[in-house]
Amino acid sequence: MNYKIALIKGDGIGPEIVDEAVKVLDRVGVKYGHTFDYTRVLMGGESIDACGVPLTDEAIAQCKASDSVLMGSIGGNTTTSPWYKLEPSLRPEAGLLKLRKSLGLFANIRPAYLYDELKAACPIKDEIIGDQGFDMVIMRELTGGLYFGERKTVEENGVLKAYDSLTYDENEIRRIAIKGFEIAMKRRKNVISVDKANVLDSSRLWRKVVEEVAKDYPEVTYSHMLVDNCAMQLVKNPGQFDVILTENMFGDILSDEASEITGSIGMLSSASLSETSLGLYEPSHGSAPDIAGTNQANPIATILSAAMMLRYSLNLDKEADAIEAAVKAVLKKGFRTVDIMSEGCTQLGCKEMGDAIAAEI
Amino acid sequence: MNYKIALIKGDGIGPEIVDEAVKVLDRVGVKYGHTFDYTRVLMGGESIDACGVPLTDEAIAQCKASDSVLMGSIGGNTTTSPWYKLEPSLRPEAGLLKLRKSLGLFANIRPAYLYDELKAACPIKDEIIGDQGFDMVIMRELTGGLYFGERKTVEENGVLKAYDSLTYDENEIRRIAIKGFEIAMKRRKNVISVDKANVLDSSRLWRKVVEEVAKDYPEVTYSHMLVDNCAMQLVKNPGQFDVILTENMFGDILSDEASEITGSIGMLSSASLSETSLGLYEPSHGSAPDIAGTNQANPIATILSAAMMLRYSLNLDKEADAIEAAVKAVLKKGFRTVDIMSEGCTQLGCKEMGDAIAAEI
Ligand SMILES: CC(C)[C@H](C(=O)O)[C@@H](O)C(=O)O
Ligand SMILES: CC(C)[C@H](C(=O)O)[C@@H](O)C(=O)O
Repeated sequence: MNYKIALIKGDGIGPEIVDEAVKVLDRVGVKYGHTFDYTRVLMGGESIDACGVPLTDEAIAQCKASDSVLMGSIGGNTTTSPWYKLEPSLRPEAGLLKLRKSLGLFANIRPAYLYDELKAACPIKDEIIGDQGFDMVIMRELTGGLYFGERKTVEENGVLKAYDSLTYDENEIRRIAIKGFEIAMKRRKNVISVDKANVLDSSRLWRKVVEEVAKDYPEVTYSHMLVDNCAMQLVKNPGQFDVILTENMFGDILSDEASEITGSIGMLSSASLSETSLGLYEPSHGSAPDIAGTNQANPIATILSAAMMLRYSLNLDKEADAIEAAVKAVLKKGFRTVDIMSEGCTQLGCKEMGDAIAAEI
Repeated sequence: MNYKIALIKGDGIGPEIVDEAVKVLDRVGVKYGHTFDYTRVLMGGESIDACGVPLTDEAIAQCKASDSVLMGSIGGNTTTSPWYKLEPSLRPEAGLLKLRKSLGLFANIRPAYLYDELKAACPIKDEIIGDQGFDMVIMRELTGGLYFGERKTVEENGVLKAYDSLTYDENEIRRIAIKGFEIAMKRRKNVISVDKANVLDSSRLWRKVVEEVAKDYPEVTYSHMLVDNCAMQLVKNPGQFDVILTENMFGDILSDEASEITGSIGMLSSASLSETSLGLYEPSHGSAPDIAGTNQANPIATILSAAMMLRYSLNLDKEADAIEAAVKAVLKKGFRTVDIMSEGCTQLGCKEMGDAIAAEI
């Protein structure tokens, strides 16, 4: 089969890590008889430099015309880069937010788990992690809430006042809740829905709808947790979580906390899904402008994002399995990029890690 | 001198832990020649049971007529307690939110630090914590933002839709920023202001005002950090933080994460301050209804909250020092409540821990 992939290389280490993911995808293509046709799409800083805005309508159209979107990372150093002298709606991140909304990418899936081989990098003590480690997925709503509410800053009686708004309707909550329970069915069948129902109306509606959706999944156990408590529980006992289901801003905070708790954020992929098969796949980490171009970046998160793309958007499970197995194999052989390096292992650059993984396919 | 203290014992373990703080305060009174007159004030579940609402106007008036307020904890088991069958505005927590607003308690100070004696309880690995451990203060805005914005839930074309709003004006931001820089001046002179300025207008105004305030504190180094990054950095390198300055909801989440990172939340006190000397002092932990009445609660956070009260509201520094030294002394002697118990130490009940600390004064 022939698949059309929109490639957003982006800024910082983005181009390097995407190149390695492409290398691995092409190897999968050869082995399994697929061709991947790539269209370069500009977003973030590279788009600002080329077109004056972080995302053009043409770029959106290119993504929509593809089977899926694979992305590196966008953005630069917020204090030194000229991109951050622009008004907020013209900065790199605004491009990503606009793309999420334009493609209807309401469901963000971020796995956070401990690789056996990388347990040493986990910042949490062994006695808390235990032998079984942890393996959770954060299901974050991605096109609603504070991110996309109306906002304004006005002067009232000589005093500046800023307004943001957080709104959710039943339908927005229901569709993400369904995704959360669906993914739980394929995992350990537990959902913890996170909100701040003791304060927010949107959280109380969230709870109500989640309870309704839960009725359709009698096999899934579920419970509610307040967001402040969840921020504690992730540190105290990460092993208790299977699927965390939450709204946009809480998901932003908690998914970053959860990835840090693995100690190997360079390994963590993410998927942003829509109602159709079109999805956006990107590493959970950022653009690391300080090491861009030095061949030090870890391409594994991006390579695993490509695997998620094969699984969720292109329905190529076997091929996705092959990539995941290849990553495990290189780790087992002791190959490491510098961010996950430890004694007795062999350090590789970004390119060499891509080669090693491709060779395992 | 004679001081009038409003005592909110509250729910769950609240009464037990407040009794021990009173024991210690009275001992301080005898030693330093003060008298503390206590007025019992009802709030939370105990107020619902007695008066039908979580906070009466009379209770607010009693607090306002006092020099300061010392509180235990409020709330019960949210799934089994009848309080949580009431509408949200009548539940225990609504009483606390109303009290914060009524007393103008805009500045919430939550210290999070590692006691040398309790390093073993810290969930983070030793190589991250290092020899110097960590010692930070979260300065959380407490009477603005999402907590006190307008909210509503309405049906639009047959679809339920919930609205919450997040607003801040310059003045609200300025006064909390000043508190943050003031406290930094008495500490290691570093402020990290946390926001989500790449998304929210309120965060962009926050940043602008913090930058203005910072000009008045040339000795204090400061920087900005995004809230998602902060949630990561707290796990990755807690030692980098001195004062974290942030808005209400982010502060709720981050302060709970930070306290969990100490591993000894039963030790952590908090202060909520107003423009006057009137403040509210309470432990950072909750009401632990499951162990209420069993003499197992750790009273230390409440006793240290009483010390903060002496320092910040009553200007009794020497007396506050005495309480803090007494707590350190009992820890050094190996006395522990069950939540912080470790091998080779002597386990005490709540009352006995109160006795031991009072005896050191
Ligand atoms: C870049 C930023 C706007 C974005 C977000 O907050 O969603 C990022 O932190 C993420 O989590 O993908
Ligand atoms: C009880 C609740 C409303 C409160 C809050 O969210 O502020 C609590 O979590 C706290 O941090 O004091």
